[in-house]
Amino acid sequence: MTPSPNLKHLQKKLDYQFKDIGLLEKALTHRSAAGRHNERLEFLGDAILGSIIAHQLYLQFPKADEGQLSRLRAFLVKEKALFELAQELDLGDFLRLGSGELKSGGYRRASILSDAFEAIIGAVYLDSDFIATQTFVLNLYRNRLGALSLDMAQKDPKTRLQEWLQARNIEIPEYEVTRSVGKDHAKTYWVNCKVNYNELIAEGKGASRRKAEQDAAEKILEKISNG
Amino acid sequence: MTPSPNLKHLQKKLDYQFKDIGLLEKALTHRSAAGRHNERLEFLGDAILGSIIAHQLYLQFPKADEGQLSRLRAFLVKEKALFELAQELDLGDFLRLGSGELKSGGYRRASILSDAFEAIIGAVYLDSDFIATQTFVLNLYRNRLGALSLDMAQKDPKTRLQEWLQARNIEIPEYEVTRSVGKDHAKTYWVNCKVNYNELIAEGKGASRRKAEQDAAEKILEKISNG
Repeated sequence: MTPSPNLKHLQKKLDYQFKDIGLLEKALTHRSAAGRHNERLEFLGDAILGSIIAHQLYLQFPKADEGQLSRLRAFLVKEKALFELAQELDLGDFLRLGSGELKSGGYRRASILSDAFEAIIGAVYLDSDFIATQTFVLNLYRNRLGALSLDMAQKDPKTRLQEWLQARNIEIPEYEVTRSVGKDHAKTYWVNCKVNYNELIAEGKGASRRKAEQDAAEKILEKISNG
Repeated sequence: MTPSPNLKHLQKKLDYQFKDIGLLEKALTHRSAAGRHNERLEFLGDAILGSIIAHQLYLQFPKADEGQLSRLRAFLVKEKALFELAQELDLGDFLRLGSGELKSGGYRRASILSDAFEAIIGAVYLDSDFIATQTFVLNLYRNRLGALSLDMAQKDPKTRLQEWLQARNIEIPEYEVTRSVGKDHAKTYWVNCKVNYNELIAEGKGASRRKAEQDAAEKILEKISNG
């Protein structure tokens, strides 16, 4: 287990002082470390975060429909977003990991950092109440919420392409992986997307099959909108 | 649109008096009706309900791990559970539906009723605060929470069977629909499950393919545990 870090510094960054510092310690403890770990706090924090963001979006976007609100929320609470917030707080410096995770660089891993971020929200909630946690979360999200716009609630390209085709009774597109290059964690995929409309075809590429498909769908949509 | 019902009666059942009765009216209004409907409130209520239940389970099951807490929550907030709660409140009598949904019996439909139930939670939250909504929700869930036990956090039979086989390096089971009887909404499926262990085979049945598969997996697990 890593030596106890200076949690004063972290609390300053969080702009929150814990009454029960044990809660913060637990939130920072990965299951690989000895002692009580953060998974239950993560479960709680995930739910509390979801409702705080839901309420904020409800207020901030009075004209958004349910689908748009859901997509905006997904954008704000997806692992990538939580990972970035965790990085801004340098959470990696304060994590408690088992020796295996330590050696393999677990303090840099997106899943471990984003889980710890959620666990901290759970810890703040148990340490205080819903209103205080709301202030805490909205403070951390201030810039992101400020930059948010309804455009970001757009459906992903594959969904938009499929809906466009379905509205015209055209069959759904075909996606085919044409090649992939690189090893497990640094692979690039190429995907062809074919639609039964003007014989359109486009090639997309990305770090996963899914991303390559989205890229290909986006290119088909561009071709369609360019006539 | 249905005539304005007597919301006094509903508020008595809910054991909650709205300061802004317009919120309750909106929560009861399906998108098929004219006017402002309940979809945004449902989005909000779903999130608030999720965090209230998460917190309650966190307190009620101090030994449960995150997977068990997640499964218990899923059990309490799945459509079927919300539908039953909505029925206990006779929500169908108070729904505001468009004429199409009215004619087709929308006030009895599980999705419409469970959505309205969540929307009411969102409405209570906006009408009051988190603590009052917590009291409101826990009151409605009192019997269900009292009857809850960790056994209910068991993984479903298909998952348990697959994990049991994988732990023994046996390939995953094969499921095959052998027949189905009945029309669209009243169909019954029969599924065979075969595993590469003691030549076990079992037949399951259910109202959906998935349910029939779960039933078949459960029977294989019974055969395994009976040696």
